[in-house]
Amino acid sequence: MELNADLQKYIGKRISEIRSKNNQTQQDIEFLTGIDSAEVSKYESGKRNLTLKTLMKFASALQVHPKELFDFEFDIKKYRVEE
Amino acid sequence: MELNADLQKYIGKRISEIRSKNNQTQQDIEFLTGIDSAEVSKYESGKRNLTLKTLMKFASALQVHPKELFDFEFDIKKYRVEE
Repeated sequence: MELNADLQKYIGKRISEIRSKNNQTQQDIEFLTGIDSAEVSKYESGKRNLTLKTLMKFASALQVHPKELFDFEFDIKKYRVEE
Repeated sequence: MELNADLQKYIGKRISEIRSKNNQTQQDIEFLTGIDSAEVSKYESGKRNLTLKTLMKFASALQVHPKELFDFEFDIKKYRVEE
């Protein structure tokens, strides 16, 4: 399994969920992070490579602890380090 | 405050804590991740720039959910997106 691809999909889903819960639009996130709203959409669907820095921009814009972005079912044992 | 620098310090501390709890040495982590043990030491003290990929190598070597690496007190409200 592709760890990073899967992970980005899960994190993207969390970004989308928290944003909706906060009643924030993708345009709001663009305003707060400087990331174009079309790119925000791609991050939310896991189609962009996430860096830790970008992750923290989202955490800050959503005003959540970064661990909230990792709050999903995930079995690390299925993945090997090399992947 | 420097978000990424602080964050790396906190994550490094978590890596170190979990590794000790697991009775794993820095050499064990080198064996599992391919990251030189001297580098592991630097990551644990927050002196290396973490990428999401590296973070996941640590999660996999420590066999923990990635959110465990973010399990620390952290007030995102103190940080601005630009930092």
